[in-house]
Amino acid sequence: MKLGRFVVEGLDGPVHRICLVLPEQGRVIDLRAAEALRLQTQGATREASLRLASALFPESMSAAIALGQQFLDSAAQAAEKRGDDASLAIDVIKWGAACDPSVVRDGLTFTKHIRQFHERMNVTPQPALLDIPGYFKGSPWTVIGNDAVVPWPAKGQRIDYELEIGWVIGKLANNVSPDDALSHLFGVTIFNDFSARDLQANEFAIGMGPTKSKDFAYGIGPWITTIDEFKSLNNIAMSVRVNGETWGEGDTSEMLWTPEELIAYVSIDDHIQPGDVIGSGTMGNGSALEIGRSLNPGDLVELEVAGVGVLRNRIGEKKADGWWPEKRQPFM
Amino acid sequence: MKLGRFVVEGLDGPVHRICLVLPEQGRVIDLRAAEALRLQTQGATREASLRLASALFPESMSAAIALGQQFLDSAAQAAEKRGDDASLAIDVIKWGAACDPSVVRDGLTFTKHIRQFHERMNVTPQPALLDIPGYFKGSPWTVIGNDAVVPWPAKGQRIDYELEIGWVIGKLANNVSPDDALSHLFGVTIFNDFSARDLQANEFAIGMGPTKSKDFAYGIGPWITTIDEFKSLNNIAMSVRVNGETWGEGDTSEMLWTPEELIAYVSIDDHIQPGDVIGSGTMGNGSALEIGRSLNPGDLVELEVAGVGVLRNRIGEKKADGWWPEKRQPFM
Repeated sequence: MKLGRFVVEGLDGPVHRICLVLPEQGRVIDLRAAEALRLQTQGATREASLRLASALFPESMSAAIALGQQFLDSAAQAAEKRGDDASLAIDVIKWGAACDPSVVRDGLTFTKHIRQFHERMNVTPQPALLDIPGYFKGSPWTVIGNDAVVPWPAKGQRIDYELEIGWVIGKLANNVSPDDALSHLFGVTIFNDFSARDLQANEFAIGMGPTKSKDFAYGIGPWITTIDEFKSLNNIAMSVRVNGETWGEGDTSEMLWTPEELIAYVSIDDHIQPGDVIGSGTMGNGSALEIGRSLNPGDLVELEVAGVGVLRNRIGEKKADGWWPEKRQPFM
Repeated sequence: MKLGRFVVEGLDGPVHRICLVLPEQGRVIDLRAAEALRLQTQGATREASLRLASALFPESMSAAIALGQQFLDSAAQAAEKRGDDASLAIDVIKWGAACDPSVVRDGLTFTKHIRQFHERMNVTPQPALLDIPGYFKGSPWTVIGNDAVVPWPAKGQRIDYELEIGWVIGKLANNVSPDDALSHLFGVTIFNDFSARDLQANEFAIGMGPTKSKDFAYGIGPWITTIDEFKSLNNIAMSVRVNGETWGEGDTSEMLWTPEELIAYVSIDDHIQPGDVIGSGTMGNGSALEIGRSLNPGDLVELEVAGVGVLRNRIGEKKADGWWPEKRQPFM
């Protein structure tokens, strides 16, 4: 099942609708509308049908996933009974971010990327990389969806994409074991960890994790494919195109840490929440940095992941300079 | 005004109540209850009074702060009119975390701590520390309140506190200028950035920011003091006691970056949300590391901040070993 969100203009401003995506048919089904119609057919009043349909298919994908199996069962039922009457053409909708994670987390998994990243950044890989799965936490407030323009980051000059899988969590949990981790995985989406390479060096040196080099945009979408549609997680084909030209291709093999280990590690002492997204880490050749290139305003970046689809974002224009901190005098 | 949250057992499990705290009188006022009583006096039905009181004083402190000035006005009005009838003794309530931030962020501000931290960890301070305000992002799912037991972190051995101010954000904003930053500050709370020093070295080396060394507990409380009660933000007295013995004292002077600059920097490209907490960074002598000590199970840690109060947490017992990743073979 493929599930996403689109945006419609409501009486009080834009609202998100959860949809079942049927890429082959070129349609999406507005699940709230389909479920309300189904309930009305069974005798519900309009008001009561909308109340229940809104509880089953709220604006937040995280809130929907938090309903557990009921979400998937209700989606299947609503689509089957009244999907035709609540469907829209896929090419006219305005996409929202597929997920609204409570925390964005992003791992470091693919050995080819790790090797090439260190070579390009001219830094020595730390032995610590072999001890624990490294991951960073990103702001959930800069998540963008398919077709959204990527805001050009303040002071950034060398802008990059990162081609990643987004593992979407299905259950609230902590201290999950790797053996049990897959049962906590709701689905797979595409994750573009946009980066300002020139800002990254200082942030890397400070060691507290990325801030302004990453917290300007996390692309998530175009939708989520539920986990049952994947036979295996370590041979998913991936590619990236910039302005229609392929800049990188590969798959999810050569993992330093499996998705099961990454999920288990993230959940130690901490809590993973339904709808949280954990980036897989960048695929080898999945960043422009690795091939000695970078992005310009207006560039169109398309990430493709087999079994999901294509996440497409255009890079926005540079902005007028805002405030930036003044360098301090040494105090040590 | 001092505002906090306490926990009561509801029909479906524990719920949070927002309260006005009157430390001198040894009382707290349940604001939802006081407002419902006030509305009933004016002719509201019980049901309608609870509906409006719950909207004004929801479980989430972030949701309440998001109401802007209305939250403070309603709190003052409810407390004045019916506070006596909705008050409880301060020493019988079970505290919740004062805030439920959407993101925990924590800065690096006090030069004395930065100097002493680097000496103790035997690492060379990076010039980057002078370029930009370093901060990390923590999981919001491990926030704990006053009197809560600190879960001992997996694999951690050398556990520490960090004595910090928590700057509580009052408004949704991005790209705030330092000149305007104070108008986005709702109040001041106490922030204990508990740390596992032995886990920190590997995570620091990876450069993606702290994960398991920090994301096991962030102490926030006991309550928030609104910003109008502070004449100045750079001479707030702070101290830490462990098992009743003073381990560190100081104040908020000697800042590398002002709170205004920290808030402004955090807001660049990203969004700050009502109820978000930004840790000030650790005060000089505000960690056991700096004085060559560490914590043991059962230790009672009390952080005191003038104008707020005392945030008190006991360190929990060590747990049985759970899963931990196996070291990988070098691949470069």
